[in-house]
Amino acid sequence: MPPTSETLTAERILEATEEVLRRHGPAKATVVDVARALGVSHGSVYRHFRTKAALREAVTKRWLDRTSLRLAGIVDAEDRDPRQRLRDWLAALFAAKRHKAGDDPELFATYTVLTDELGGVVFEHIADLTGQLTRIITAGAGSGDFSVPDPAAAARAVFQATGRFHDPCYAREWTAPGIDEEFTAVVDLLVRGLSSPSR
Amino acid sequence: MPPTSETLTAERILEATEEVLRRHGPAKATVVDVARALGVSHGSVYRHFRTKAALREAVTKRWLDRTSLRLAGIVDAEDRDPRQRLRDWLAALFAAKRHKAGDDPELFATYTVLTDELGGVVFEHIADLTGQLTRIITAGAGSGDFSVPDPAAAARAVFQATGRFHDPCYAREWTAPGIDEEFTAVVDLLVRGLSSPSR
Repeated sequence: MPPTSETLTAERILEATEEVLRRHGPAKATVVDVARALGVSHGSVYRHFRTKAALREAVTKRWLDRTSLRLAGIVDAEDRDPRQRLRDWLAALFAAKRHKAGDDPELFATYTVLTDELGGVVFEHIADLTGQLTRIITAGAGSGDFSVPDPAAAARAVFQATGRFHDPCYAREWTAPGIDEEFTAVVDLLVRGLSSPSR
Repeated sequence: MPPTSETLTAERILEATEEVLRRHGPAKATVVDVARALGVSHGSVYRHFRTKAALREAVTKRWLDRTSLRLAGIVDAEDRDPRQRLRDWLAALFAAKRHKAGDDPELFATYTVLTDELGGVVFEHIADLTGQLTRIITAGAGSGDFSVPDPAAAARAVFQATGRFHDPCYAREWTAPGIDEEFTAVVDLLVRGLSSPSR
């Protein structure tokens, strides 16, 4: 029962694309595979995404956005002080990445290949995440919890200093014994750094 | 003028091995290539290194040790206070890695493949480096510059938090504009964290 092209939304194409990527891997997945999975012509897919590159970019962005959306709620959780929000946000980022890597390793490997190719999408994703961090650190600077002259620069430093716990190049280590203690030690050190007066 | 086997030292074999790796890459380099480069039989090479794996391990360890040896002098430089020693040590590590990656990219790529295969050698190298860091942080705890209950744990955290500036998976970014400012921002934050009283 192939759906008619009326019901063909960008979101449905992206869902199908992810499934095709999971099955065939990034090197072999084609727009024809996606169209076949949806029971439509490849022309119908191209009406939504003008090139294969655009489709790959959109599906990768959607995958990355799933993480940012999960974290966005923590940024505004004003029931928690900024220090706690920062810890919770970093822990949620680590948990989200760890789940992605552990629950579906093939898809994670596929997206790791795609993000290596799609520098611009990753750049935007990192800008999005460090933007969220900047808002938490700005709140902490406002409340006096943090002593930070430049919250955006501090957010970049915190994001980079915690790379071991969110950058895919460390995915193999996310199940190592002691990794949770290591995460806590790094976050403690960074929170102390943000909290102490500048010299 | 092939040298006699009397003059064949482990160090000469390792030098030749590095040259063979540079020329052929890690996948194709063989013990026969190394023996040929030295003008000796492969049996003579095996008298020093009993297996190809042992030879690869030794040459990789030698390459990694070059970095640790450069840094060791900073650990004991008591003319500088521990905070400055920590900054200098991290900057020297970044500089050493950056030089290795930039001056001889083929050899760097080769050793990155080898270190991926040789987990034990890398583990020892990291233990060696964090051991050096632990000595600096211990000195800082003794002098009151750092407020750190567990210098070894703090050293691991500092090493991991600065991975962007020494881990080969970030080598591509070491020439990016702004990387030096990013390095300074991360190190400042960590030094502040180490210096502030625990809560």
